[in-house]
Amino acid sequence: MSQVLRIRVVQFEVLPGRPRENVDRMLESVARAREAVRDAVVFPEMAVPGYLLGDEWERPAFLRECEACGELLREASRDIVILFGNVGLDWHKHNEDGRVRKYNACFVAAGGRFLGPEGGPYPFVIKTLMPNYREFDDSRHFFDTRKLARELGCTVESLIAPVRIGDWRVGAMLCEDGWDTDYGVSPLRILAAKGVDFLVNASASPFTFDKNHKRHRVFTAAAAAVKRPVVYVNKTGIQNNGKTVFTFDGSSCVYDGSGNVLEGPAAFEEGTLDVDLPRAGTGFFGGPVPPVRDNIATLAKALLYGTERFLRQCGADRVVVGASGGIDSAVVASLYRQILPPDQILLVNMPSRFNSGTTIGLARALAANLGCGYVEVPIEESVRLTQRQLDGVEIAWPGKKRRLGLTDTVMENVQARDRVARVLSAMAAAFGGVFTCNANKSELTVGYTTLYGDLGGYLANIADLWKGEVYALGRHLNTHVYDEAVLPEGVFTVTPSAELSAAQAVDEGKGDPLVYPYHDCLFRSWVESWNRVTPEEILEWYQSGVLEPRIGWDGRIGELFATPAEFIADLERWWNLYQGLGVAKRIQAPPVLAVKRRAFGFDHRESQMGARYTERYQALKRGQTGAGGS
Amino acid sequence: MSQVLRIRVVQFEVLPGRPRENVDRMLESVARAREAVRDAVVFPEMAVPGYLLGDEWERPAFLRECEACGELLREASRDIVILFGNVGLDWHKHNEDGRVRKYNACFVAAGGRFLGPEGGPYPFVIKTLMPNYREFDDSRHFFDTRKLARELGCTVESLIAPVRIGDWRVGAMLCEDGWDTDYGVSPLRILAAKGVDFLVNASASPFTFDKNHKRHRVFTAAAAAVKRPVVYVNKTGIQNNGKTVFTFDGSSCVYDGSGNVLEGPAAFEEGTLDVDLPRAGTGFFGGPVPPVRDNIATLAKALLYGTERFLRQCGADRVVVGASGGIDSAVVASLYRQILPPDQILLVNMPSRFNSGTTIGLARALAANLGCGYVEVPIEESVRLTQRQLDGVEIAWPGKKRRLGLTDTVMENVQARDRVARVLSAMAAAFGGVFTCNANKSELTVGYTTLYGDLGGYLANIADLWKGEVYALGRHLNTHVYDEAVLPEGVFTVTPSAELSAAQAVDEGKGDPLVYPYHDCLFRSWVESWNRVTPEEILEWYQSGVLEPRIGWDGRIGELFATPAEFIADLERWWNLYQGLGVAKRIQAPPVLAVKRRAFGFDHRESQMGARYTERYQALKRGQTGAGGS
Repeated sequence: MSQVLRIRVVQFEVLPGRPRENVDRMLESVARAREAVRDAVVFPEMAVPGYLLGDEWERPAFLRECEACGELLREASRDIVILFGNVGLDWHKHNEDGRVRKYNACFVAAGGRFLGPEGGPYPFVIKTLMPNYREFDDSRHFFDTRKLARELGCTVESLIAPVRIGDWRVGAMLCEDGWDTDYGVSPLRILAAKGVDFLVNASASPFTFDKNHKRHRVFTAAAAAVKRPVVYVNKTGIQNNGKTVFTFDGSSCVYDGSGNVLEGPAAFEEGTLDVDLPRAGTGFFGGPVPPVRDNIATLAKALLYGTERFLRQCGADRVVVGASGGIDSAVVASLYRQILPPDQILLVNMPSRFNSGTTIGLARALAANLGCGYVEVPIEESVRLTQRQLDGVEIAWPGKKRRLGLTDTVMENVQARDRVARVLSAMAAAFGGVFTCNANKSELTVGYTTLYGDLGGYLANIADLWKGEVYALGRHLNTHVYDEAVLPEGVFTVTPSAELSAAQAVDEGKGDPLVYPYHDCLFRSWVESWNRVTPEEILEWYQSGVLEPRIGWDGRIGELFATPAEFIADLERWWNLYQGLGVAKRIQAPPVLAVKRRAFGFDHRESQMGARYTERYQALKRGQTGAGGS
Repeated sequence: MSQVLRIRVVQFEVLPGRPRENVDRMLESVARAREAVRDAVVFPEMAVPGYLLGDEWERPAFLRECEACGELLREASRDIVILFGNVGLDWHKHNEDGRVRKYNACFVAAGGRFLGPEGGPYPFVIKTLMPNYREFDDSRHFFDTRKLARELGCTVESLIAPVRIGDWRVGAMLCEDGWDTDYGVSPLRILAAKGVDFLVNASASPFTFDKNHKRHRVFTAAAAAVKRPVVYVNKTGIQNNGKTVFTFDGSSCVYDGSGNVLEGPAAFEEGTLDVDLPRAGTGFFGGPVPPVRDNIATLAKALLYGTERFLRQCGADRVVVGASGGIDSAVVASLYRQILPPDQILLVNMPSRFNSGTTIGLARALAANLGCGYVEVPIEESVRLTQRQLDGVEIAWPGKKRRLGLTDTVMENVQARDRVARVLSAMAAAFGGVFTCNANKSELTVGYTTLYGDLGGYLANIADLWKGEVYALGRHLNTHVYDEAVLPEGVFTVTPSAELSAAQAVDEGKGDPLVYPYHDCLFRSWVESWNRVTPEEILEWYQSGVLEPRIGWDGRIGELFATPAEFIADLERWWNLYQGLGVAKRIQAPPVLAVKRRAFGFDHRESQMGARYTERYQALKRGQTGAGGS
């Protein structure tokens, strides 16, 4: 390994919280790399323990097991270099929470020994930049280089150094270390100044819409800055933090120092990438960085991957889908049909008297097209029983009595809960599987869904898609995945409706109160903008006539709302729900499969505080309407 | 204010996310302090914005409002010193997430100006120690002194300094700054070295069982170390992070430098504490630090406070309690009866054929004792309807049919969901209120509860109490709160049971599979120990004969399990549930009212990964039983 370093990049599915299983697979990879006469094998960040593990890091038994697994890799390194991510432990020190000292670490094992950075205190490389936004919680568990520098009375620069493997100097970084734009420290620049033969970025980087586009830009620049190759290795699989499930796309690759990239295994697939790194110069390999932009096909791939893995992780191989005849359940059922054979999928249509023949027909057609099991379970009798039993029920207090009445709205929710908590829950258990939550992100934002009703389910796998994206996904499934119209055309054209009352009769064109193209864009500005937008900005933009471009909507607001008062009433109606009942419902919602920035759950942390309007909003509103804020 | 500084400590209820409302109340306090000729008024940490706000900090409109509210306090400071917590903003810099620079800051306003620490870059004091354990997420949102020191190329020591108010030097700290044991930086020691006339610790410190006991110890030592008084000011109210609701007990006080304390307003109550701080010396005021230890009375107070505030924050003033005749619902109903008049509380007993006359009688007696509304809503008819409709239902696949059957276990869950998703949900809406979740921590740990069934509700207010603590709370309510047996004696003596099948017949002494005194202690070791215990440690302790003292149980394990195999089977049964289905259920559980360390939810972050056993556990088990781990 003098003039060329024969590296094997291993993109594999890391099982969170399963160090023994992961290390077994890593050892197999090492054996195969040895047979292929590679000099070094490179694994992702936290390849041994997994990365998003909640507070699993607080269990010493788990930490000891991770450490023991790392020892197995060290022992396997006698004749091959092994670079891998694991938790780095210092049992003699503690973190700032008083628990044992833990680092998010990159280990380089060679000749049966761990090699640390030149001059460093530990035989492993420490992650310096700790992401603490979105789903990331690194500084909750891991001590960082800056704190260590203070503790040791040295500089951060002295702690960040290449690892010397023979006469090669490797600049090992962990994930965020390569994304230094907003940090006061740049591991890349420190390593570049010290001189490296190549860089490795070992990542545990979840898929996010268009992340890889940005990554190509950032890492090409990094390779150009050091004029040396950058090896990027990322894991596949899924990991979750309870409320939110993330997919890891891998997409490992190697950047030469000249703007080219050698692509590795396909996204979401396991595989290896062999590259022979030159001893000097940038190397020329691969081709131009592709102008990758994610689209609905990428989303479909991530959703299918994440759903399949989560289902399997839950130990389930049968699903029940409540099939209303609308777009959401049709898309969900069609996604599952890519994952499971048709005899393991059951579609249940549960009509009450408000359900139209139109939607029942669509549910039937969908089931027939997919070849899935299908049954209609009318809920009319049980809903009437509930109404008969509870409407007018007499409550006794000492010395007085009172009758309770069920309003129309209550009866709407009774239907939704009857379908899910009574029928689907029992059907799923009887079928030996789980049932799905078909809520989309538009509904979830404003809680346009019933708790213990259609918000139930084991996983909300399209809940990171706005309604418009659900339609686009449906079209994509028909056109590019199934190559035929398995989703009946009617599910795209029928009025979106919960069909819970006569006011939501689809055959009369009545349905949801959401005007989807507009409200999708409005809600997106509240939820997904990095500096989050509130009614204050919305009203300001409306008054300045720039609302449409600011929220990325191609309609005309004047065509939806004739007057400012109408616009404001709509704005406040949805904001109140987003910040009020919507939060309460999301707290009890199923896990959301995240595919974009700011999925609900752990990525978008919320407090139940009620809706609120700033003073400036109130002033803008007074200027518009002459009335105070609500 | 030359030889004595007349300080007023203001303990008040901070409304999270409501800067305008908070500052209005603070301005009133300032006006009253001015009338009372106080020199200075001191408010808690994050008194303006609130503290646990989820990702509210990402909204620039909210930040601008907080800043504007701080300006109002600055303006009010022309003739009085005002010390308060607020978000400190630097609009010209950014945090490491790319968003605007935010500090958790203590502002000192005097003479109409903000006074920063001597030689510091900002006109406010920055929180240095950032808690990132339990429910705390400070470093997600706030830039800290250590990062700032690096950015400015100066030392941390140069950034931590007293604030000079006239000829007084005030050492202002924020909450965790005073709890420096596990940190590499001690703001206290730095301030002491520079010389201060007194210290202020402005806190946003949630109530946790026995926290104040420790706080007295830590802060008395701090006062002794600087030989000057320490003013401790904490807020009241409740704040939440979605899944978990925290109470703030206030308990503000002033420590002289001689081991004495002057206690302020009662816990959980608003009020002020006036103290005249001497210009020199430690001062001698107050009395000896009380040997405060929390007990069931303290827990009751915190639970009543948190429940009352959360109910009010939800805008609800009526509750429906599913009253089974058991201890949990009896305690919940009795807590609410302290909060609401009896005509705003409705107890609903929902018998199926498995419910005994014993428990129905207990529910009736409880309602009568409390004077609440009461109704019995039998669920037998609807459960039978479900069974008739779904048991044997025929599913059609293209070319084949299959019938589904409902097992006894499914029928148990059908009953639980019928009660909650059908009856209580509709009754609560009809009654114009919310319904409660009566789950306790023992049940929640292992998911011994039905999703969309008894795990439903707007708030789980006793879900941070182990079953044994629920019994103790029930006794306390009878003896010390009501001074009569409002909880019928039978609820303490009846076999705990879900009464969902003949196998759970209480009159035959049959019931829950949990042996509460032992399992409470076992589960506590898994959930509440700081370095969390797993089956590995449990089995090791069992084999060493030290299990009972290690988990704090006063029974004898040999009396519960005749053989190691039985012990292990029980251990694995519950661990599998805790780490398996229990996690899935908790993800969809209602908010938990936290009163201890490690309440479920945001304080105890979990990932759905399934149960797992370490290699060492497997080895211990093999040694014990000769068989491999499951």
